[in-house]
Amino acid sequence: MFYDRDPWKEQSMKSRTSLKDVAREAGVSTATISRHLNGSLDLPEPTRMRIEAAVSKLRYHPNPHARRLSLGKSDTIALILPDIANPFFAKLAAAIEKAAERHSSMVLLHATFNKSDREMAALERAAQNQVDGVIFITNRAPEAKVARALNDFARAVILDEDVPGGKVPRVLCDNGLGGVLAGQHLRAAGHRHVAYFGGGADLHSTQTRLEGLRSGLAQNGEPAYEPTLFVGDHSPTSGRILAEEFLRNADQETAIFSGSDELTVGILEVFHERKIKVPDDFSLISFDDARSLHLFAPAITSVRQPVDQLGERAVEILFSDAWDQPDFKALTERMPVELVERSSVAMPANKKKRPEKQL
Amino acid sequence: MFYDRDPWKEQSMKSRTSLKDVAREAGVSTATISRHLNGSLDLPEPTRMRIEAAVSKLRYHPNPHARRLSLGKSDTIALILPDIANPFFAKLAAAIEKAAERHSSMVLLHATFNKSDREMAALERAAQNQVDGVIFITNRAPEAKVARALNDFARAVILDEDVPGGKVPRVLCDNGLGGVLAGQHLRAAGHRHVAYFGGGADLHSTQTRLEGLRSGLAQNGEPAYEPTLFVGDHSPTSGRILAEEFLRNADQETAIFSGSDELTVGILEVFHERKIKVPDDFSLISFDDARSLHLFAPAITSVRQPVDQLGERAVEILFSDAWDQPDFKALTERMPVELVERSSVAMPANKKKRPEKQL
Repeated sequence: MFYDRDPWKEQSMKSRTSLKDVAREAGVSTATISRHLNGSLDLPEPTRMRIEAAVSKLRYHPNPHARRLSLGKSDTIALILPDIANPFFAKLAAAIEKAAERHSSMVLLHATFNKSDREMAALERAAQNQVDGVIFITNRAPEAKVARALNDFARAVILDEDVPGGKVPRVLCDNGLGGVLAGQHLRAAGHRHVAYFGGGADLHSTQTRLEGLRSGLAQNGEPAYEPTLFVGDHSPTSGRILAEEFLRNADQETAIFSGSDELTVGILEVFHERKIKVPDDFSLISFDDARSLHLFAPAITSVRQPVDQLGERAVEILFSDAWDQPDFKALTERMPVELVERSSVAMPANKKKRPEKQL
Repeated sequence: MFYDRDPWKEQSMKSRTSLKDVAREAGVSTATISRHLNGSLDLPEPTRMRIEAAVSKLRYHPNPHARRLSLGKSDTIALILPDIANPFFAKLAAAIEKAAERHSSMVLLHATFNKSDREMAALERAAQNQVDGVIFITNRAPEAKVARALNDFARAVILDEDVPGGKVPRVLCDNGLGGVLAGQHLRAAGHRHVAYFGGGADLHSTQTRLEGLRSGLAQNGEPAYEPTLFVGDHSPTSGRILAEEFLRNADQETAIFSGSDELTVGILEVFHERKIKVPDDFSLISFDDARSLHLFAPAITSVRQPVDQLGERAVEILFSDAWDQPDFKALTERMPVELVERSSVAMPANKKKRPEKQL
């Protein structure tokens, strides 16, 4: 422990006013005040006003930890996410904080950097803190123990990326639709061979988007060429590595569907350095649309996640009255995505004519 | 209150194991266990191990609210900031969360959207929650009551923007240096008439950067033309409004020094729409460098704030051992900034020759 003394001894007079002082001032019992402040007692208006006046005059603040003990409520929710510095998660956190406030609840932040031990530690700490609920966001496919820890909470919601085995409500974006929209848009521009850059082959988001991409690229019952898969994690560094790998191995691919703005940043950094032009050399579609892609060179076409609605829904579900209904924990909500067209998709560069592989 | 029942009644067996059960299992008194778990008692190794084994076997979690009552410690700090969705604050929050973790402390998030009443409410709530400390970030020049509320805390740190009247330590970036670097760079490229876009004429950051800008634009003792001031708040919307105002009123200005990436986004949106070219028509320097400005069209030259160090220092100061030293609360740390040169500054467009105003 880093404190060599109790900092609250020095605190302003606020913390020194006791319930007894307020009771004396208001002329009622401490029990009456305590139950009134807890919201567990309805008092006649004059008594209520006498108490409020005494509280205000003496600047009394109930000790929140004592109150929590008696109410079994912490007025906080735990937000467990990979990295708040990631603009998509920052926007999600902002929406969650705003929505939580409507329930008088504060947000405790836990960054996991997508590491298993940190996810477990955050869940453990949330349990110790007896938060009113947990919103869990990961960027990887977590082990069964993560799902088990989540399932132990009275109230927890999985947000954005699925956690297999989690028996709690989920709020995801419609990843399948995102894949379909990207596939249809690329197909319409003349692309047949597309690479998908994603955060892991075992991720629910990767699998669902790939499925959508296949279906979007297919037309008139005619099957599509299987998208090439490049996987790492959702970071600019990973985007750089995958872009280098793509440039070494790309054969017939004329377009990239990038699974996140973070990957897109890394891809564009490599392309800029190597004077590879988007969309002249390769077309590119991003996913998230949480960065200022409209100002990029070129402006990047992207599947847009409904980030505010995702955050709001997760909080609404956490504070829902329906938790005792039989199938509530099996709830999965998929929020629609949209394609924002900008300038990073064009007809494939026809110069480099190469024989197409047989399907 | 939104709960119609106590959610923790349904909680896993964790919360049902009591201190008594552990005491019985370990064969020691509850007081011994309690003091051991509080860290206030050193026990012989075998006793300690017996207790740990009992805690582990029974999956006992001490009630954190009870523990906080007895220790006067909450293991949380309050982070009060304008908006976590702003990439600069998101990065700052990430650095703060990481540093707080080294002190076993969690971060409670409060977004104020730069509103006076929300800043006061967040401070009030932090006092009620008896957090171990407060990190306060604003984007405006707050009223005296905000400073007074901050001064009431045993431990609070002002971060990023000054709060006049605050008698607590401050961690700021070197705004003056930022102004000097921008001024020198623009002067070297041939600019004399520069507009500063900022978050308010009364802001410490605006005043200090303007002072630096003047000094950077001046040379050989010869005074500089007074920079033109365009002020709003640090948001893309404000950047758009100020850019329109600038285009209506710009007379001899050939360059813009933008006080934040948020303003820069708004400026560039308007310029793109109106086909105004950076740097051909106007040169532009941003401040923060927290967005992916290197991928913008054009890549934007920017003063870079040391965002990780700013966050780390604020936390280190909060948990410092020096709070009882006489002048500790008067501490102001200014972290150096640097100029990152990219492609948004060039020689002024000489086509539009207009007579220069007299100084």
